[in-house]
Amino acid sequence: MVDASDELRVLFSESSPSVEGSRINVPGVYYGQGVNIDKSAKIGPNAVILGHDENGNQAAVIEEEAEIGANATILSGVTVGVRARVAPGSVVTRSVPPLAIVEGNPAKIIGYVETYSSEDPTININQVDSIPLGFRQTRVRDVTVHHFNKVPDLRGSLSVGEFEREIPFVPKRYFLVYDVPTAEVRGEHAHFQCGQFLIAVKGSVSVVVDDGDLRDEILLDRPQMGVYLPPMTWGVQYNYSTDAVLLVFASEFYDSDDYIRDYSKFLELVKRAA
Amino acid sequence: MVDASDELRVLFSESSPSVEGSRINVPGVYYGQGVNIDKSAKIGPNAVILGHDENGNQAAVIEEEAEIGANATILSGVTVGVRARVAPGSVVTRSVPPLAIVEGNPAKIIGYVETYSSEDPTININQVDSIPLGFRQTRVRDVTVHHFNKVPDLRGSLSVGEFEREIPFVPKRYFLVYDVPTAEVRGEHAHFQCGQFLIAVKGSVSVVVDDGDLRDEILLDRPQMGVYLPPMTWGVQYNYSTDAVLLVFASEFYDSDDYIRDYSKFLELVKRAA
Amino acid sequence: MVDASDELRVLFSESSPSVEGSRINVPGVYYGQGVNIDKSAKIGPNAVILGHDENGNQAAVIEEEAEIGANATILSGVTVGVRARVAPGSVVTRSVPPLAIVEGNPAKIIGYVETYSSEDPTININQVDSIPLGFRQTRVRDVTVHHFNKVPDLRGSLSVGEFEREIPFVPKRYFLVYDVPTAEVRGEHAHFQCGQFLIAVKGSVSVVVDDGDLRDEILLDRPQMGVYLPPMTWGVQYNYSTDAVLLVFASEFYDSDDYIRDYSKFLELVKRAA
Amino acid sequence: MVDASDELRVLFSESSPSVEGSRINVPGVYYGQGVNIDKSAKIGPNAVILGHDENGNQAAVIEEEAEIGANATILSGVTVGVRARVAPGSVVTRSVPPLAIVEGNPAKIIGYVETYSSEDPTININQVDSIPLGFRQTRVRDVTVHHFNKVPDLRGSLSVGEFEREIPFVPKRYFLVYDVPTAEVRGEHAHFQCGQFLIAVKGSVSVVVDDGDLRDEILLDRPQMGVYLPPMTWGVQYNYSTDAVLLVFASEFYDSDDYIRDYSKFLELVKRAA
Amino acid sequence: MVDASDELRVLFSESSPSVEGSRINVPGVYYGQGVNIDKSAKIGPNAVILGHDENGNQAAVIEEEAEIGANATILSGVTVGVRARVAPGSVVTRSVPPLAIVEGNPAKIIGYVETYSSEDPTININQVDSIPLGFRQTRVRDVTVHHFNKVPDLRGSLSVGEFEREIPFVPKRYFLVYDVPTAEVRGEHAHFQCGQFLIAVKGSVSVVVDDGDLRDEILLDRPQMGVYLPPMTWGVQYNYSTDAVLLVFASEFYDSDDYIRDYSKFLELVKRAA
Amino acid sequence: MVDASDELRVLFSESSPSVEGSRINVPGVYYGQGVNIDKSAKIGPNAVILGHDENGNQAAVIEEEAEIGANATILSGVTVGVRARVAPGSVVTRSVPPLAIVEGNPAKIIGYVETYSSEDPTININQVDSIPLGFRQTRVRDVTVHHFNKVPDLRGSLSVGEFEREIPFVPKRYFLVYDVPTAEVRGEHAHFQCGQFLIAVKGSVSVVVDDGDLRDEILLDRPQMGVYLPPMTWGVQYNYSTDAVLLVFASEFYDSDDYIRDYSKFLELVKRAA
Repeated sequence: MVDASDELRVLFSESSPSVEGSRINVPGVYYGQGVNIDKSAKIGPNAVILGHDENGNQAAVIEEEAEIGANATILSGVTVGVRARVAPGSVVTRSVPPLAIVEGNPAKIIGYVETYSSEDPTININQVDSIPLGFRQTRVRDVTVHHFNKVPDLRGSLSVGEFEREIPFVPKRYFLVYDVPTAEVRGEHAHFQCGQFLIAVKGSVSVVVDDGDLRDEILLDRPQMGVYLPPMTWGVQYNYSTDAVLLVFASEFYDSDDYIRDYSKFLELVKRAA
Repeated sequence: MVDASDELRVLFSESSPSVEGSRINVPGVYYGQGVNIDKSAKIGPNAVILGHDENGNQAAVIEEEAEIGANATILSGVTVGVRARVAPGSVVTRSVPPLAIVEGNPAKIIGYVETYSSEDPTININQVDSIPLGFRQTRVRDVTVHHFNKVPDLRGSLSVGEFEREIPFVPKRYFLVYDVPTAEVRGEHAHFQCGQFLIAVKGSVSVVVDDGDLRDEILLDRPQMGVYLPPMTWGVQYNYSTDAVLLVFASEFYDSDDYIRDYSKFLELVKRAA
Repeated sequence: MVDASDELRVLFSESSPSVEGSRINVPGVYYGQGVNIDKSAKIGPNAVILGHDENGNQAAVIEEEAEIGANATILSGVTVGVRARVAPGSVVTRSVPPLAIVEGNPAKIIGYVETYSSEDPTININQVDSIPLGFRQTRVRDVTVHHFNKVPDLRGSLSVGEFEREIPFVPKRYFLVYDVPTAEVRGEHAHFQCGQFLIAVKGSVSVVVDDGDLRDEILLDRPQMGVYLPPMTWGVQYNYSTDAVLLVFASEFYDSDDYIRDYSKFLELVKRAA
Repeated sequence: MVDASDELRVLFSESSPSVEGSRINVPGVYYGQGVNIDKSAKIGPNAVILGHDENGNQAAVIEEEAEIGANATILSGVTVGVRARVAPGSVVTRSVPPLAIVEGNPAKIIGYVETYSSEDPTININQVDSIPLGFRQTRVRDVTVHHFNKVPDLRGSLSVGEFEREIPFVPKRYFLVYDVPTAEVRGEHAHFQCGQFLIAVKGSVSVVVDDGDLRDEILLDRPQMGVYLPPMTWGVQYNYSTDAVLLVFASEFYDSDDYIRDYSKFLELVKRAA
Repeated sequence: MVDASDELRVLFSESSPSVEGSRINVPGVYYGQGVNIDKSAKIGPNAVILGHDENGNQAAVIEEEAEIGANATILSGVTVGVRARVAPGSVVTRSVPPLAIVEGNPAKIIGYVETYSSEDPTININQVDSIPLGFRQTRVRDVTVHHFNKVPDLRGSLSVGEFEREIPFVPKRYFLVYDVPTAEVRGEHAHFQCGQFLIAVKGSVSVVVDDGDLRDEILLDRPQMGVYLPPMTWGVQYNYSTDAVLLVFASEFYDSDDYIRDYSKFLELVKRAA
Repeated sequence: MVDASDELRVLFSESSPSVEGSRINVPGVYYGQGVNIDKSAKIGPNAVILGHDENGNQAAVIEEEAEIGANATILSGVTVGVRARVAPGSVVTRSVPPLAIVEGNPAKIIGYVETYSSEDPTININQVDSIPLGFRQTRVRDVTVHHFNKVPDLRGSLSVGEFEREIPFVPKRYFLVYDVPTAEVRGEHAHFQCGQFLIAVKGSVSVVVDDGDLRDEILLDRPQMGVYLPPMTWGVQYNYSTDAVLLVFASEFYDSDDYIRDYSKFLELVKRAA
């Protein structure tokens, strides 16, 4: 972020009813009517955060510990989620998920904060020729990355996986996700009971897994690779390649009550369970 | 637009002689030397409107009821036309036609204000399989959308139209428009006498038609479809696909005196005629 | 086939031990040493059927009721299977499966004899907008074609299926088939015990199903569509689009003894069971 | 053609009722039952000319002065037209128009005999930079090639033509031809009364014009170029590029009695008129 | 640049120790902690120039006579080089070389200041058909543009050059530059002793040459064209096409002491030599 | 070849003056007038070998030990060179170089007889990651394959070679070969004095090197790899990828007397020298 110094820490007067705390002068920043900015957020100089507009869009919301870069523009109707980061000069036209890093005009997600790609030297899962079959632990509790057998021959390639033996459950359901615009983010929820197993059967997808404590980012980019998300794992998928097809096996039938869609609530539930 | 509230209404110093009216402080806005901003225009916070520059470009002009979004940058030499809208954060490097909506860096036209696509549920002209032949009225006075016979066979497709019978005039002239960069806008004029008939013989083009009162936007995207613009219709074409070829039949030979190229003048003429 | 008249019916001398019957002169045809041509096969004029060669390839074999078009060239090592058809002028460089129709240079499979695509007017399963969810019977015993829910939204599309509820078994295994060259044929076997469920999660694949009596061809060309092959169904997949990914659920773990790979044996087993 | 020597000149015995003349031994040629080969045709060695088949296709017909190359295969149902030429090794799967030259497997039209492209040095109309506006005569009676003004600017290109002034008639009808497979030939007729004006508004098309005496081939490959076909001109269009769109103006409304679709009849009519 | 008037001349407070000179109020500009801005630089209104950040990036540096457009954002860690220009509204995420002109979000190089393309009417070297073989002088001291023989035939094209005869030295070394991202700039140095000869053997590259006094930009876009850079010539290559391969002959073996990598030092050395 | 048996060995009567030996009946083969077939050649059944034609092309020539596959068509004007092989079913439209293997319609070179690719297990030069810098001997006398340093960085890749140090001569000349149709063969000569060094700076090319005794085929497919051909080495380049650019350094200026263009003569010269 642009600057850690005090004068970038935003605090608002009482006259801005949804904001608590005192004000500090961040030079050149504009706050529209009704904007709701958490006192732990940071705002860079010359940033613009728009209020509600004529079209019925709500005033922008900046959540806990989010950071807005210098000269960035946050449009009406946008929420910048918990600990998300907006790069300097970005124009944010739609909401930024918790922990996401965005940049550009219009702004797109380019990563997640404190999320380590599995491509680091000691646990390189992406070196095509030396991946042992089987699975390995990630930094995130009980999340495992699996590599299945690939049987190429002149007539095409075959990749095989066995339920219960290799994938840790018998599926009650599968679903396919496809035709996802590159800029889209999917997932962004956890389950109470349901386990999931994700395979990019075509193209590539980045999967962020989060147990409330640590985060990992896994690039699924070949059919013979999968990632297991046990219950109570926050999952996000993004950076879909244009041809990506994501196959998901689910250990349970669909149950809308099994979804945790709010990251803050997820964090709370995780803490309570600990 | 960013905000209808008073504090976005622009107020200028006396030293800015070409601007009349009262002044309200819009925070963070910069006005370059010689900029000409109509008093009915709205300017968002932190916007930058540049004056004449060293290269001989004139100071920017912001016309009646135009709206400049927060943190937008309007370069020297640019005119933002009547009722046009610049999205927040945009960098406007060339003139914006009347009524156009632009966004991005550099800013591109993404639509026209109060212009309704013909794709609304009741008059869906774009459903391939259920379009009756013949023509239908649009919301705009005497502008009609026509669907011709298409005769596909194994040797290719054929689309046929007859003059006077199906197209409401005998042409004296045709012209072809092609190799249009996607960002370009063409047309932007009305005729006193000349009627026109437009067909996208390849690719697609969006046509905005305007009788001074109402506007419609018609997507021409197949050879067997056309739109008739009677005299005294303001027409704009934009969103050319990269392969687009627009065929236009004209009811008159070329006559430079027949063109109305100024939208404000067009509006006046329409009112006078009414 | 080129001609049904007697003089195109091939019969061979005793000195060619694997061929029975009398000879009729088929003009210009060349039979290599050791070729094995069933007396019910038909060979067109000027065709070339090669014998064993210097490289150790066996002489070509033309099986029952196969038809070889005029001026076609059948290379050493090739078997043209039961009732297969080689179009005139083709150059056949590898074996032609039973019932397949091939053409070109090199020859490629273009269809299967007496196999009716499901695209006939009365059972059109490929009309995108009018397919009811659920499944329908094909002409082939117990083979069903299934259509699942598709949930498109701005963030991409989702297709969901439930095991036991919609798919008639709980899978013990899945496999993915991909990177298949367009000219390749896969499958070509039946199972004693294992049921299979096929979905083209990307691209398209043609699936031929055969119960020993009737055949159907189903074009899988969208993720929300699948076909169920019960045990004792002969299955062939071909015409893979270049981007095709075929997802197969299997009701059993892999067991090599469960495969019937010879079409003649399959026919026998079906008859015995009847 | 492979050889002009006598033994390649085909003549048939009376026992082949539709064929007149004496037989000469052309080595390895196969003639199917019922083939109808004009005695002026030439057939190369090892060619295969198929008779009527089981599917109800008629025997092949080889018309006056047609030439069939060595080892070519002519399928049932095909007519090889007057003076057409089939190159050695071709596999001819559909009828070859009069005068056409075909090659390949399957055979495609590559030109027309004695048809001179306008690209010869003395009348080069295709040199982009030096084409004068206006029109020029071709070798074919009253057929003219026209070049219109092209007005390129940064916003795309414009090409304009005026009826009666530049194009020799006022159109009663236009039609568009598109999505033509590259191998297809269109046109192949003349009109008694209707004049036509052809423009390739996208891509390119080769136009063969023929007054019964001389032939020219004109490559239409830019929007600002057109060709005028007066009444009593035989016209053929082929070699459509994959993106080609041909715009045709017609001087008359559609009248099926105005078409002459048989080339031999056209020649007769031309001679009678002379 | 946006405005040459006094009020765009940047003036700093005493607390900004690395900046000398007088101060003028440029409205809305933000200077981060530790930024180093030469007093000859110009800064536009509402620009943001960031200081050192939490990630260890240094504060931005704006060198002599550089110009920062209105509302531009200069990120931490960035140096904007001598006389470089940043267009209004740009977001500069990495360092800008001396003399470069950048625009966009993120900003990319679009040209070099006071650098004249060789495409002007009097010395058009890019007209394919009329280029004489041999070489011609540029505006830059001893830099020559060379055109070699091209020998096209049906089997491909051949381009030949001879050392000492056509290229003014015998090479001791060659190198190939390829796989260069379009946004990249290479070169940006001069040599004391080594002469270089550059050929774009595939694709195209823009070469900027500079003798400390004058600059030229040469578009290398065909294999039979090259540019000679004598010792003491500053060279930059940019606008690599995606398929570009640049072949460089060098008159000397590699010697790291022969490189001048700092443009200011280069200017000094040139002056001293004069 | 289709068959090694005696009856495929072609021998000709005296009445075919340019052919020696006795005739054996090869079924269905056509020999055109004037064909010149060496008695050591082999011809497959139903092949067509054309004589001189009306267009002035000479009769086909089949040289020593060449092999013509079954049902192949050899056009007029073609020479099938020493030991070349034409695969069954091919249509050969232009001359086949000595030792080349062709197939297809039209026939293309797919390899050279008894030419071993350097990709065999013991001398694998194509394994990207394990190639040592420097050079290695091939099976062919004094021909060496070189690997240069590649320096990839974020700004593109660099490959460097030094003359005399790494490349065994100082160049007097370079040439670039590009835009070569895939089917073309270049080279096909040896030099008395000139050494050459070949680098595929873009795309890939197969280089066949031959010292009159042994042959090797080297696939040049990366810029940092080259092959040195000393004087008196027969060289052929083929299988150019569509984007290939071949850079050749020559140790001598051009001298037409230095070329040996006839393979038989080359063999003689080599033997004499031995």
